[in-house]
Formats: sequence, C-alpha cells, structure tokens
Amino acid sequence: MSLNPEQIHEFMRTQFPNATGIECLEVGDQHAVARWTYDSVGLRPGGLISGPTIFALADTALYFAVFGAIGIEPMAVTADLSITFLRPARDGDLMARADLFHIGRARIHGSIDLWIDEYPDRPVARATGTSARPRN
Amino acid sequence: MSLNPEQIHEFMRTQFPNATGIECLEVGDQHAVARWTYDSVGLRPGGLISGPTIFALADTALYFAVFGAIGIEPMAVTADLSITFLRPARDGDLMARADLFHIGRARIHGSIDLWIDEYPDRPVARATGTSARPRN
Amino acid sequence: MSLNPEQIHEFMRTQFPNATGIECLEVGDQHAVARWTYDSVGLRPGGLISGPTIFALADTALYFAVFGAIGIEPMAVTADLSITFLRPARDGDLMARADLFHIGRARIHGSIDLWIDEYPDRPVARATGTSARPRN
Amino acid sequence: MSLNPEQIHEFMRTQFPNATGIECLEVGDQHAVARWTYDSVGLRPGGLISGPTIFALADTALYFAVFGAIGIEPMAVTADLSITFLRPARDGDLMARADLFHIGRARIHGSIDLWIDEYPDRPVARATGTSARPRN
Repeated sequence: MSLNPEQIHEFMRTQFPNATGIECLEVGDQHAVARWTYDSVGLRPGGLISGPTIFALADTALYFAVFGAIGIEPMAVTADLSITFLRPARDGDLMARADLFHIGRARIHGSIDLWIDEYPDRPVARATGTSARPRN
Repeated sequence: MSLNPEQIHEFMRTQFPNATGIECLEVGDQHAVARWTYDSVGLRPGGLISGPTIFALADTALYFAVFGAIGIEPMAVTADLSITFLRPARDGDLMARADLFHIGRARIHGSIDLWIDEYPDRPVARATGTSARPRN
Repeated sequence: MSLNPEQIHEFMRTQFPNATGIECLEVGDQHAVARWTYDSVGLRPGGLISGPTIFALADTALYFAVFGAIGIEPMAVTADLSITFLRPARDGDLMARADLFHIGRARIHGSIDLWIDEYPDRPVARATGTSARPRN
Repeated sequence: MSLNPEQIHEFMRTQFPNATGIECLEVGDQHAVARWTYDSVGLRPGGLISGPTIFALADTALYFAVFGAIGIEPMAVTADLSITFLRPARDGDLMARADLFHIGRARIHGSIDLWIDEYPDRPVARATGTSARPRN
C-alpha cells in the first residue's frame, strides 16, 4: 500500500535519467533515506564533497519523503531550502535522512540530516526545506 | 590589479574540471555575475531547470564574488546557503549575480539573484549565503 | 493614492497598541523604512540590542512594505524569516529597510537590511522573509 | 554538576530583567525546553501570538540549550536564526524545545520546535539557529 524504494527508483530512471548516483534506501509516510555513491565528479578542491552535491542529495531526500507522504508526484517542487554545512565531507558515500515535520495542504516542510556513511554521529550538513504541492 | 573573469576560468579548469557549464562573466571587489549554459542534463520533470542546478550556480556565483573580494582562495567554503525558488525556471541560460553585503574576518556574506538570461526582471530564485574564509 | 507613513501609524496605534517604539519612516510600493527608538527594554547583556528586538523590527519593516504593495492588510502574516546577525548592535536607534523582490499571488518576498541610525554603511543584520497574503 | 532551570532563572532575573514571561522548564547537555506564558502583550491582529513573540521564545530556548552545553555564558550570541511559521498560534502558553545538533568550537547549531502547550502534536513554528561562542 505504501511506497517502496523500488517504485521510486523506477520513477527516477524514467524521469531523471541524468540524476545518477542517488538512490532511495528507505521511504515511509513521513521520512526517506537516500544515498549518494561517492564519485570524484562531485568533489571540490581539497577532495571535499562539493556543496552542490550535498544540496542535491538533501533536496532529493526531501522529494522522496514527500513521495512517501503523498505518493509519487513529479511536479512537487522545492519552494525553499536552507542548508548549513557543519563539517568537511569526504572519503565516503553521503547519506541523507529527510523527516517531514508538517504536511499542509499547500506545503510540506521537512528537515534533512546528512552524514558520511561510516560516521552517522558526525553530521556534515543539516537542511530545512519546503516542498510546494502542485495545485490541481 | 583586481581579478578578471579569465583568471577565474583558468582556476576552474584546473580545480573543478567536472564543473562544466558555469562561467564567470563579471567580477568586482564585492560582486560577481555567472552563467549556466542551458543543457538538458540540468533539467527535471516538466522541463524545468532543477533545484540543484540553480543552487550550484548560486553557490558558484558567491564563490566567484568571494574571489573578487579576497583573491582566488580555493579553500573558501560555503558555510550556509538559503535559497527561495520564486518561479519556474525554463528554456534559457540561467544567470546569477552575487553581491557581498558583509566582508568579515572569518565570514563573508552575500545575496544572490538568479534569472533566465532574457528575463532579468523576472527573478527565478533568490539566495543568501555565507562563505567561511580558511584559517591560516 | 499610495500609502503614507501616517496611515500606517494610525493602523499600528489601533491594532498593535503594545508595539511601541517602532515607527514607519517611509513606505513605497516595493519598500518601507522603519525605526526602533533606542530603549533599554530591548537590550541584552553587554548593552547590545537583543536579537528579538532586531527580529521584531525586521519583521515589522517587511509588514509595512507589504502594506505599501497591497494596502493595509492586517492579516498578512509572516510565513518565514531568516536573519543573519553581522555585527553587535548598540548605542543608537535601529533602522530597517525592507525591499520586496517578488510579489506573487499568494506570497510576497523581501529582504531587510538593518543598521544603527548613524552608521548606514555598517549593517548589523540582514534578513530575508516571506509574507503570506490572506486567502479571500 | 550539570545546569538546572533554577540557575538559568537566576541568571535571567539579573541579566534580562525586562525579559519577563519566558521561563526555562528543562535543560540538558544538548537541549532545553522553555515556556512563554500567554499574555496579550505578545498578540497581533486576529488574536494570534505575534511572530516576534515566537522568535523571542525560539531564540531564548536556543540560548538556554547552549547554556546546558557549555555553561551559563551571557555573551553567547545568536549568529543566525531561520524560522518557519506553520500554523496560527493562539489561546495558550507557547512552548519551545531546542535541540543542539552540532557543538563546534566556534559555533553551536540547534533546531527549535514550537507549539501551544495543549497541542504538542501540532507545531506552530520550527526554527534553526546558530549561536556564536565568545572568543576568549
């Protein structure tokens, strides 16, 4: 009845053929977990995972959590996202968990925690974002 | 004496070989203008320029403006960035202008306006961000 | 035809009888300027003007600018506001200028610059906020 | 050994004599809970608890949580705070819980959930903020 990660993968393959490297590991009715597989394309000087790479994963994890809440809705769009970078991110896959804290009629709000896979207790970034539901 | 866009391009070619598609058009001691050349790789469903693509340009424009203020400093890193998406962005090159509003010893703050090249009066997003200067 | 500060004062006196200390100096169709008169009630340790005092002025300046854009609308409410404190604020009246950068059907977005009256070139804080228009 | 709410009250009485209406209910080494007692002074048109009142409680709860983490440090100052208002807040005491998610050498980051006392499952606002530790 509820969504599973494979349904999200199928959606991503068809709708975002270029967004390789991000997968959905878990999805529930108020959260999702996503992973970006380490790849030198996403790095910046110093060997750090770049800000845009981290933003992309945060944004995508929020998108997946919104799908968990309202079903796969391609036209849900991010209305705003604030991200704070806490530590250098390097040398591993990047993980993100989005938790929705308010599901309104027009807008869905969530926070996103990000960390390197092996270090769940050492957040590399934290974001808060809003997704606007399409008007029917 | 001050920086010019060509110096920034040279830096980007050597340090961010994968960050294609973004160029610096203008750089001063408190601002920079950057462009992302339209490319289907940065799109999302509906033919819209994706949020991560827009974030990447905002973040890069801020980076360039920081270079204009303090010189090319590869290890300047974004500490936080908040972005609000105002309108669907589609069908054209994306432009960003970053203006620094506070240059502190440890942190540099700027705002970034983004628009589609042909429509400078119709902002598609607005961001505010902080860059942390490396400690020596 | 357009609004003037005296109309806003009249509104504030009747609707916000407790919000003393803030006045509107200027209002246009996309901006407003407001002042908080220095008062020890708004201070915190170190003799600094407190964060909540600064937030209150930023929020009120945005409210006034929204009035300039759409007329006096008591039920316009702030949907979000992000504020960055740039310098200690002390020893003078606090000024705020709100500029609207997007006036949408449902939401109005603005940025707010804040400074101590005598030091317009030394911003003490910068904010970005959204006002939600009441639905009719 | 760790801090208790009474120590925070004593500090507030001496350092913030004008900040009446806010009390600390709970403080730990990574969180704090605070309450604003309902008072018509904090209201806005429509009988809603005003944005600045909500901001003040969020900011103060973060301040208390920082005290829990590093001891009572009057000169800890908020560096930035982003708040999203989720629902009208009315007719009751306002509660805030601040949770610290990163305690760095220079900066401490936390998120703050706010709700009306009787409705813990209906958040009225959510904030994310940064406190700058004084340099010694």
